[in-house]
Amino acid sequence: MDNFKAHLNKFITVTDEEYASIFSFFQEIEVKKKQNLMLHGEICRSMYFVSVGCLRKFFVNKKGTEQTTEFAIENWWITDTFAFERQIKSDFCIQAVEHSTIFVITLAQQELLLQKHPAMERYFRMIYQRASAASEKRIRYLYEMSREEFYVHFSTLYPWFIQRIPQYLIASYLNLTPEYLSEIRAKLRS
Amino acid sequence: MDNFKAHLNKFITVTDEEYASIFSFFQEIEVKKKQNLMLHGEICRSMYFVSVGCLRKFFVNKKGTEQTTEFAIENWWITDTFAFERQIKSDFCIQAVEHSTIFVITLAQQELLLQKHPAMERYFRMIYQRASAASEKRIRYLYEMSREEFYVHFSTLYPWFIQRIPQYLIASYLNLTPEYLSEIRAKLRS
Repeated sequence: MDNFKAHLNKFITVTDEEYASIFSFFQEIEVKKKQNLMLHGEICRSMYFVSVGCLRKFFVNKKGTEQTTEFAIENWWITDTFAFERQIKSDFCIQAVEHSTIFVITLAQQELLLQKHPAMERYFRMIYQRASAASEKRIRYLYEMSREEFYVHFSTLYPWFIQRIPQYLIASYLNLTPEYLSEIRAKLRS
Repeated sequence: MDNFKAHLNKFITVTDEEYASIFSFFQEIEVKKKQNLMLHGEICRSMYFVSVGCLRKFFVNKKGTEQTTEFAIENWWITDTFAFERQIKSDFCIQAVEHSTIFVITLAQQELLLQKHPAMERYFRMIYQRASAASEKRIRYLYEMSREEFYVHFSTLYPWFIQRIPQYLIASYLNLTPEYLSEIRAKLRS
């Protein structure tokens, strides 16, 4: 739980006492690789903070294939933001990519946390601001780059990510077949 | 400026007195159709709130074509969030689609506003949360839908938007040539 305190202190100032109180609003859980945290069709009750490990969000497309739209590694949040805010059914699934330690907070608990610790409004404002900034960049890439260019860009910026995540999930995130991704990788090596 | 107060009151509670103080951190400007608020290569100094009218954000792609990635109509914000937070040069342009009334705030003024009115942290947290939710949905559509399906989806959800925005900008937003968009529209009418 100490990396979460250090993470919060990048955005706001949190004493040990405050941190103990803040952390009491969360539930800490361990999830195994491929374990689901939220299933398609379930109400999106929680936000998930990755303390250790990696989660992904995906939907099942018309062909029945899992399409990964987001990954979250250490110190990132993941949820279906639209469904979470409205406490409605999500059409996404959230699953562990690795054995992970996750801090979970429900909407009701988040509201109580924000009332007791108004500095957390600032923290979440900055978190969502960064998520928005990342989305704006990503949407631009989706307009601007071919899939091959996007893979090169992605693997140059995040080489450790490419190492860490199974290749079939990278392919799913990049909206490529695993075979086509293998072809691109072979072409880049040659 | 009264629609801004009503807009704020959807998220937080703002008295007339507080509103006068909040509004003093903004600069109100009028921009003509096609007037630029921010040019590619300039430092992104401000966020823009649309009181009346419509703005768009675009970049110039490798072919030299303007590629629209975002629109903002009444009660929406627009900026290059990544460049704004870091006060660095943006590789986007922001331009008026219509004659518009815009409330402008710089990063320094926003910080002063947040210090004086902490409730505005909550407001901006909720604004960015909604922006994130919208981006998550949009990224899913970019994976899931063909351009034709996206146009049908878009024009069904936002018919007034299709009426209001010039067709060549809709085409740019949907990453279609104006000719191909005309074909899709003709096909849908038949």
